[in-house]
Amino acid sequence: MKFCSECAAPVTLKIPADDTRERFVCVACGTIHYQNPKMVVGTVPVWDIDGDLKILLCKRAIEPRLGFWTLPAGFMENNETSSQAAQRETIEEAGANIELHELFSILNVPHVHQVHLFYRATLLDTDFAAGTESLDVRLFSEHEIPWDDIAFPTITSTLRFFFADHKARQQGRGFQLHAHDFIKSEHVPS
Amino acid sequence: MKFCSECAAPVTLKIPADDTRERFVCVACGTIHYQNPKMVVGTVPVWDIDGDLKILLCKRAIEPRLGFWTLPAGFMENNETSSQAAQRETIEEAGANIELHELFSILNVPHVHQVHLFYRATLLDTDFAAGTESLDVRLFSEHEIPWDDIAFPTITSTLRFFFADHKARQQGRGFQLHAHDFIKSEHVPS
Ligand SMILES: [Zn+2]
Ligand SMILES: [Zn+2]
Repeated sequence: MKFCSECAAPVTLKIPADDTRERFVCVACGTIHYQNPKMVVGTVPVWDIDGDLKILLCKRAIEPRLGFWTLPAGFMENNETSSQAAQRETIEEAGANIELHELFSILNVPHVHQVHLFYRATLLDTDFAAGTESLDVRLFSEHEIPWDDIAFPTITSTLRFFFADHKARQQGRGFQLHAHDFIKSEHVPS
Repeated sequence: MKFCSECAAPVTLKIPADDTRERFVCVACGTIHYQNPKMVVGTVPVWDIDGDLKILLCKRAIEPRLGFWTLPAGFMENNETSSQAAQRETIEEAGANIELHELFSILNVPHVHQVHLFYRATLLDTDFAAGTESLDVRLFSEHEIPWDDIAFPTITSTLRFFFADHKARQQGRGFQLHAHDFIKSEHVPS
């Protein structure tokens, strides 16, 4: 940020009165331009044939991580709820018809100023198709997941949490919310 | 937003190529200025004397809703996690020493472009004190909560969810995550 979006004067980095952090402040009109984390919201779309689970993944057609596999997800927009965002991204990236379930993971990625949320979802049919931001969309059972070619650590974690909960569920426990923070030096949590 | 924060040229509202929504786009350098929801993060700080629960509320010293009561909460900052934000806001607004627990509520307020998150927390002592954004900080048992003077519907909901779960807990159920969306015409959910 170099200029004030309200009056076009230059901005300077300083700590405003009654604040403790540096902000971009306009030298002319005094507007403080706050910058806050963004939410990335998506789904874990499950196709379940008699307990034989498959997960829908999208191969990214855009940077970053072009060509790597991801769960359908994207930036939450103004004027929508987090579950609307999850459903919208699943349609846009994978053309998938889903029933949305509970929030399943909340993952902080503070060094990129992001919080990722994933909802569990049931695929209603297999009429999915790659959207403009996907090169391919495919169903994977657990042993078929391309673990070495997953786009982001939050996706790897969410998939691992999902399969672990699915196994625990066969022993009577339900799915639960998983929270995890990705601190900078950490790439893939075990 | 009237001017580009990168080059100071005017911006115009239009739908960029490969997009479906109007964005502020710079007429000179072409930068697309995305605007996304912000996260407001806080705690439900609990002081528990032999099962006699009291909740810490702050009386707002700032607009909006100056003079109304709220749970300690505020905008999440870049470079912090959601639980760090919850802890920081509880210290800044209420000077309270807490132990943070699980995420307890996620509340969408799409018409103001916000998502509110509240974590359960245990007060470690009663050495709390109003911060610069609070006029007063006080402990309230359930029947003392000033329900007519609560600052925001997300606070009312979170408090009601909390006391309902606390009662259910005495019957053997645990605390659970509560998700609720506040659609514009709705003020206080029952
Ligand atoms: Zn200005
Ligand atoms: Zn520009």
